[in-house]
Amino acid sequence: MFTCDNKRMEDKIKTFSKFGDAGHGGITRYSLSPEAHQARDEFVKRMKEIGAVIETDDMANVYATIPGTESGLKRIVMASHCDSVKNGGNYDGILGVIGAMEVLEAVVDQSIPHRHPLTAMIWTNEEGSLYPPAMMSSGVVCGKFDKEKMLASISVLDKTTTFGDALNASPYKGEEKNRLNPGDYQAMFELHIEQGPILEDAGKDVGVVTCVLGMFNYRIRFFGQSDHAGTTPMHKRRDALHAAAQALCYLHEEIDKLERPELVYTTGEIVCHPCVHTVIPDMIDFSIDVRHEDPKVLEQVLAIVKRLPEREWAKCRCEVQLAWARDTVYFDKELVGYVKESADELGISNQYINSGAGHDAQYVSYIMPTTMIFVPSKDGHSHCEPEYTPVESCTAGASVMLNAVLKEDKK
Amino acid sequence: MFTCDNKRMEDKIKTFSKFGDAGHGGITRYSLSPEAHQARDEFVKRMKEIGAVIETDDMANVYATIPGTESGLKRIVMASHCDSVKNGGNYDGILGVIGAMEVLEAVVDQSIPHRHPLTAMIWTNEEGSLYPPAMMSSGVVCGKFDKEKMLASISVLDKTTTFGDALNASPYKGEEKNRLNPGDYQAMFELHIEQGPILEDAGKDVGVVTCVLGMFNYRIRFFGQSDHAGTTPMHKRRDALHAAAQALCYLHEEIDKLERPELVYTTGEIVCHPCVHTVIPDMIDFSIDVRHEDPKVLEQVLAIVKRLPEREWAKCRCEVQLAWARDTVYFDKELVGYVKESADELGISNQYINSGAGHDAQYVSYIMPTTMIFVPSKDGHSHCEPEYTPVESCTAGASVMLNAVLKEDKK
Repeated sequence: MFTCDNKRMEDKIKTFSKFGDAGHGGITRYSLSPEAHQARDEFVKRMKEIGAVIETDDMANVYATIPGTESGLKRIVMASHCDSVKNGGNYDGILGVIGAMEVLEAVVDQSIPHRHPLTAMIWTNEEGSLYPPAMMSSGVVCGKFDKEKMLASISVLDKTTTFGDALNASPYKGEEKNRLNPGDYQAMFELHIEQGPILEDAGKDVGVVTCVLGMFNYRIRFFGQSDHAGTTPMHKRRDALHAAAQALCYLHEEIDKLERPELVYTTGEIVCHPCVHTVIPDMIDFSIDVRHEDPKVLEQVLAIVKRLPEREWAKCRCEVQLAWARDTVYFDKELVGYVKESADELGISNQYINSGAGHDAQYVSYIMPTTMIFVPSKDGHSHCEPEYTPVESCTAGASVMLNAVLKEDKK
Repeated sequence: MFTCDNKRMEDKIKTFSKFGDAGHGGITRYSLSPEAHQARDEFVKRMKEIGAVIETDDMANVYATIPGTESGLKRIVMASHCDSVKNGGNYDGILGVIGAMEVLEAVVDQSIPHRHPLTAMIWTNEEGSLYPPAMMSSGVVCGKFDKEKMLASISVLDKTTTFGDALNASPYKGEEKNRLNPGDYQAMFELHIEQGPILEDAGKDVGVVTCVLGMFNYRIRFFGQSDHAGTTPMHKRRDALHAAAQALCYLHEEIDKLERPELVYTTGEIVCHPCVHTVIPDMIDFSIDVRHEDPKVLEQVLAIVKRLPEREWAKCRCEVQLAWARDTVYFDKELVGYVKESADELGISNQYINSGAGHDAQYVSYIMPTTMIFVPSKDGHSHCEPEYTPVESCTAGASVMLNAVLKEDKK
């Protein structure tokens, strides 16, 4: 068995945490921002130092490849992203890039024999925080998204710049022929933080990921009547916020009655119109994000959501609308097995786990064998500044990835 | 008895509705905007045509005065505002300005004898929609607000321009010595739409306003933990929006138990952080605006609000904070009597009513005898584009104001 180097991992984690440091423990590093380019430059510098060849594709994805001992074999790629959400942490995405770098560095440093070329890769714009949607470039490369539509995605900040503008301005924009493709690549591994509390609670260092949960996202809207807060008797009101508050409580009660502890559902976004303290709201629009492995459970929740407009909500009209949905994506069984065997053989405590979050790996699994490796998130926090994983766990995850890659390399 | 002219009223209502016309039945006419300046220019043009003298003060309030038959007497002023909320209607505020113009036009046209000088007036920035707070310049002139603080009020749109900047750029900025003051002015009347459904429901043309309701406005905040929507088990969550939804429903239930049908309370504003559909909200901040004539009833509601932090809200911390409060403001009994007598003598159906909304008149009542006259709002709608009052009711209100002013003129 081979292992990765804890000190080298720590150095990379500390170094990459500087790019976009927001000054209070976390980072804001939007895709293709100056901070994200600093992270890419560091990746390229370090990968060149170990003799890797750098390529970029038309979506600015970056590939660093070291040759294998046999010619004509496909590459094995390890990839994640280096962009973050606003006020995100130092691990989501970047840890998978650091882990991929570490595997190549370990292979070179220890002269570990391998037949296939090995690639460390950065996916562009996984978070979609500045240019929606999330997992944009893996979506394009894997045929999920239309590239022209993605190029037209507008910055949520300045409402003017498009993703295409940012791409054209990036020194990392390359050629379409360099894209990840099943003719040149044999399999993809993605190391990532769990972003939840399950591994920590179970005291495990590594999660062997089996699937990405199926999910749906709906918008729920209530339409009332905006009137003056001081002059409209209560019995005359059609208060969209009162309707929405009742509906939110109702959704919690009804969904909890299903008694599926592994089900998660979230209203993260709520928009109020006109949102003035002296005016009764005439429109409330909120999201509901629901995730579970079993499509039958998702159907049960969806039935509750779809029945909302049939009920009385403070005399307001209710509309529900699908924003998007995805089926559960199962990872490649053979690769999942390699990850499990590697962790067991290394004596690293581990368990099977599913991914509630979406990842580039789910789109890549459409075009080639793919899997993921999780490491614990302290207190389960992610997409926030307190996001933290002990360096030992990060190195354990990288070591598991290294050995799983070497098992795949035998094929 | 004298009456105002329905055709002349209709012409003014139509004309002023053009300034800031948002294209679907209402206006957006922020204070000191180009649209508001168009309305002021029209006011000045028409008042000059009947021989009125125009003055402006340091808050850009505009005064148009016709002389009385006796010298040395104080002015009697009729005033309201010409600014609107965003996507407001064609009556709130501007009707009181149009009514004041109409009274002067009727007096001049019909050569109605009067001893005192009579003034039609525009108050600057009553809505506070662009530069908070509401009733800004009556607050400054009547000693409620500090002028320097008001000058520093920042545009809610560009977050840069101050009210002071807008004031300096306005041709209507004048001298402080021209301010409404009890040495030069004897009394103020304000004609306004009811902004509620009470007069329409009762089939009355005019409301004789007795007071502006006491109120308080609190901010209620819930603090949870932002975590990933897909990876955080439900039992681990501290969801600030779930807490807020429960608290909103609880507030409705508890306040309704007081069984005070004349009590009104409103949550018009809700702010969510970070407001991303895949992230559990860690902070919700909402307003509650509560109004009633009786301070004991307000105390009962306040007790319910203040007890919120003692309860369990989805494991989130709750804070409540006073934003502002005011006691019930009673209008001058003698002036209220003149309004009632005038309506009765004119044979105009009327009733006593209180004002749930705040008005410039409430601050003016601190420094001189003041009262208000209401006309019905169709379906009770206000601060929205469907706001409507039949022209006959508008004219009836102006006629009542004319005769009430003439009663005051005898003193």
